[in-house]
Parts: sequence; structure tokens; C-alpha cells
Amino acid sequence: MQLPQVSVTLPDWVADAVDWDRAYATDEERMRLAIHLSRENVVRGTGGPFGAVIVEAESGRVVAVGVNSVVRLNNCTLHGEMVAFMMAQARLSCFSLSSGSLPRHELVTSCEPCAMCLGATLWSGVRRVVCGAHRDDARRLDFEEGPVFPESHEYLEARGIEIVEGVLRAEANEVLELYRNSKGLIYNG
Amino acid sequence: MQLPQVSVTLPDWVADAVDWDRAYATDEERMRLAIHLSRENVVRGTGGPFGAVIVEAESGRVVAVGVNSVVRLNNCTLHGEMVAFMMAQARLSCFSLSSGSLPRHELVTSCEPCAMCLGATLWSGVRRVVCGAHRDDARRLDFEEGPVFPESHEYLEARGIEIVEGVLRAEANEVLELYRNSKGLIYNG
Repeated sequence: MQLPQVSVTLPDWVADAVDWDRAYATDEERMRLAIHLSRENVVRGTGGPFGAVIVEAESGRVVAVGVNSVVRLNNCTLHGEMVAFMMAQARLSCFSLSSGSLPRHELVTSCEPCAMCLGATLWSGVRRVVCGAHRDDARRLDFEEGPVFPESHEYLEARGIEIVEGVLRAEANEVLELYRNSKGLIYNG
Repeated sequence: MQLPQVSVTLPDWVADAVDWDRAYATDEERMRLAIHLSRENVVRGTGGPFGAVIVEAESGRVVAVGVNSVVRLNNCTLHGEMVAFMMAQARLSCFSLSSGSLPRHELVTSCEPCAMCLGATLWSGVRRVVCGAHRDDARRLDFEEGPVFPESHEYLEARGIEIVEGVLRAEANEVLELYRNSKGLIYNG
């Protein structure tokens, strides 16, 4: 039996969608990038309407990004946040973004993390999560969020992870609506 | 900027640890395989004490397996269950194990899924989850399980996923103890 091998890649357009030398200074600037990625993912037909950014909290430097890649790569685990965590850890060769002398990292995501991504957030080593669209916005499109409860957020906050909700929520929502109007596949509906 | 690429592979020893032609008929037979994988992962030094199996419910044929690969591959998302989901979907070229005409699939895991893996279980398309060690057993080793509540299991069950706990729990626990005694890295502690 030949064991399968899984390769996780980003679409080619992603390299030019990010200004890798820029300091993305504010939550809004960082969120605008996450939303841009989510929109491009829909427009270019490479996946669902979700984008995520891992950024150094202080410098504003982008370490890695992710876009939803479930359908493109036939892999249910590849939500935008998961791809971003994997890419950041691959780039830094570590399994925790709070390892050793690393600077503080944040996750900026165009939509509130689902249950899987919220769990992974805890393992990832990010110290802050900034969310655009609310989980109810995703649910309106019949995207399931899974078992996420108010206590789930409290659990992360009790472990030192700050969660900020609703940054540019309306802009983030526009991409969800764009996806709905383009009859995008609701792959877990 | 060269985009990073993530490659998810299993250790070489895994190919021979599974009898790919066998019908693993009962929960206990399937769990014994998951526990064997968890033990070998510790003994061979390829990761944490967790193994998982994706099996066709009726035929008992193993579709894919996973072992904890967080440290080996520098990737916080690669718990045993996640690797098993990815490998099964790669093998079947689908993002849901309940796609189309596929037979029913089950996840058999040497330890109850953490919050991330429980979320992924919902997206994976498996219809049944069989657990060995309890999450409290993992917690005794300071392995975090994340925000998993009784309602989390109820949430999956309400969506048609059966969860069976405590199959060969004592045997599964022996591997956790082996890991503790071998001073294994508690990587999210």
C-alpha cells in the first residue's frame, strides 16, 4: 500500500495579493487584506468566501495568509484560518507561533472561526484574533460553524487569547453575499 | 515572495502497521489498530501518543490512518484525527466522506477528539466516532482538549453522528502513560 501524501498550496494569485514588505498597522488595514483575499478567492473561483492573515502584532508584517481551499484541494480541514496557520508555521519552522523568542502573532480572519478553527487557534500560538463577519452571517448562507458556544470564546480568553469581533463586518459580509449571489457551493450544507 | 508549501506525510513505518486487505470487523478490532498506531508513534519517536483510523463501517476496510504529527512536521493542526481525515479524502479525491455513493465511514481514535478535531469531524463526513481514552485521561498528561463541552457532543449527535466512548479505554491509556514515562513532549502544555 502506497501511503497517500497531501500537499497544501495556495493559489498562485495570492503571492501578488499581499504586500509582503508593508507594515499593516491597524486592525482595519489587516482586516481589509483578509477581506480582499476572501473576495479574490470567490472572484477567481479558487474557493469559499473566507480569507485569513497571520501578522506580527507589533510590526504589522504579514507572516502568512490562507484562503478557503476545501473544494480546490479536496480536503475538509482547509478553512482559510487553518491554511494560514499551516503556512505561518511552515515559514517559521515551528509548531507554535509563540515559540521561544518569536514576536506576538495575531490571526485576522474575514469571518469568525468555526469550531475546528477555534480549536486550532488555541494550538497555533496566536495571542489575538480579529474577526470580520459574525458567525451568524456565515450561518445565513448555510455555512455551518459547528459547536461554538459563548463558553468557547471565554475558554480561549481565559488562556490569554484576546478576541475582537465585528471589524469591518459590513465589508466582510459583502463577500459572503457575493458568494451567495454567484451560487457558490455551500460545501458543508 | 515565494509562497510556502506544506507537505503532510505519514512516517514510513505506518504502511506496514496496517493490514490493508483485512476486514476490521468490530469496534474493538478497529480500536486495537488505532491504539497500535498511537503506541508505535511513541516507540518510534515520530510523535505524540495518538492514532486514528478511518474505516468503512460495513466492510471494515481501512481507508486511511493518521498519527499525531505536530512536532515531526512543525504543524499544530496535525493531530492524528486530522491526518486521518486528510489522507482518507486524498485517497478518495473528495472533501466529504459522505459524498455521493460512498459507503458510510467511521473515525476510530485512540483518544477523544479535541475541539479542533471534533469540529473537523463534522466537516469530514464520517457518520460515527469511536473513542478509546477519555479527554480527562489526556488532560491528566496536561494535553489540552480545548473548548469541548457536553453540548459539543450533543451538537454532533443532533446532526446524525454517533459517538461511542470508552472502547478499550484502559489499553488506550497505557500508551498515554508510556508517553508520560518516556518524558514525551507535551507540546501544547
